[in-house]
Amino acid sequence: MDHLTEKFVDSKIIFEGNLLKVYSDTVELPNGKKTGREFIKHPGAIAVVPITKEGKIVLVRQFRYPIGKAILEIPAGKLDVGEEPDNCVLRELEEETGYVAHHIKKLRSVYTTPGFTDEVIHLYIADDLTVAKSHPDEDEFLDVEVYTKEQVKSMMQDGTINDAKSLIALLLAGI
Amino acid sequence: MDHLTEKFVDSKIIFEGNLLKVYSDTVELPNGKKTGREFIKHPGAIAVVPITKEGKIVLVRQFRYPIGKAILEIPAGKLDVGEEPDNCVLRELEEETGYVAHHIKKLRSVYTTPGFTDEVIHLYIADDLTVAKSHPDEDEFLDVEVYTKEQVKSMMQDGTINDAKSLIALLLAGI
Repeated sequence: MDHLTEKFVDSKIIFEGNLLKVYSDTVELPNGKKTGREFIKHPGAIAVVPITKEGKIVLVRQFRYPIGKAILEIPAGKLDVGEEPDNCVLRELEEETGYVAHHIKKLRSVYTTPGFTDEVIHLYIADDLTVAKSHPDEDEFLDVEVYTKEQVKSMMQDGTINDAKSLIALLLAGI
Repeated sequence: MDHLTEKFVDSKIIFEGNLLKVYSDTVELPNGKKTGREFIKHPGAIAVVPITKEGKIVLVRQFRYPIGKAILEIPAGKLDVGEEPDNCVLRELEEETGYVAHHIKKLRSVYTTPGFTDEVIHLYIADDLTVAKSHPDEDEFLDVEVYTKEQVKSMMQDGTINDAKSLIALLLAGI
């Protein structure tokens, strides 16, 4: 793949926030010319399709400031430093929904937008859920909503569910 | 959804690059507390599943600097200012692959990562392709690769294709 490879020349960190690290690097293109590459370093994330004992699916409705509205998604969250994705699934699921999963299975890992970030999201399915607490953590502003598979399928088709990670995980989970 | 809504307080542009515009806003949470929201403004993009007259699928292999390797994806590209997604599909398909589509159909639009960007990607399927030129534009460093549907399906399952937009569009296209 050498005829496609861009070689590192120089790296500059533009912004280091709580969430995002923004870089503006210089690279050498395969034809020898130099150009800039702006991108975001991301710690990685998990997302999980939680299925109750009754075969229903647990979704969360959450305000997403970048798009200015609340949307319906599968539970998800960023990896803490050094955290294993499997543990992150259990932690985020309980924090966001109050459910504890007694069985999780990895579906796969995907690059969300490799054009401008290194973010990898690990997609899971979780079942055999029990309720650990009736409300999610106080600092999580979200609604937990439980739907039948048919309802979720219909919302995937009519565009109500339009978040990429949710769509992939639900499609891979056979919903 | 008022109990989920975050109210705008203040906006600060951190970085305005060629590709990315990074913001660090202040918002008021539903409980009245203030917090920061870092996000990226993105012009939006298209991605397309191109199917040849023989029923084969055209993919592109491209170096993605943020992840440090070349990966296999469906053709995609950013919207130019004021550009209609339909026109962007035809333009990007021809620029990247040399194929012209005589029939395109929109699959749907999805948010790639609503946690930190407003990027929407419009997913399409294109068929009845003819070859306009044998090589893509000189400034596009990519390989055009044509596969049968069975080969693509196999690469979706074994993780060779692990780019989110490509997976969603291929799954929605029934591959």
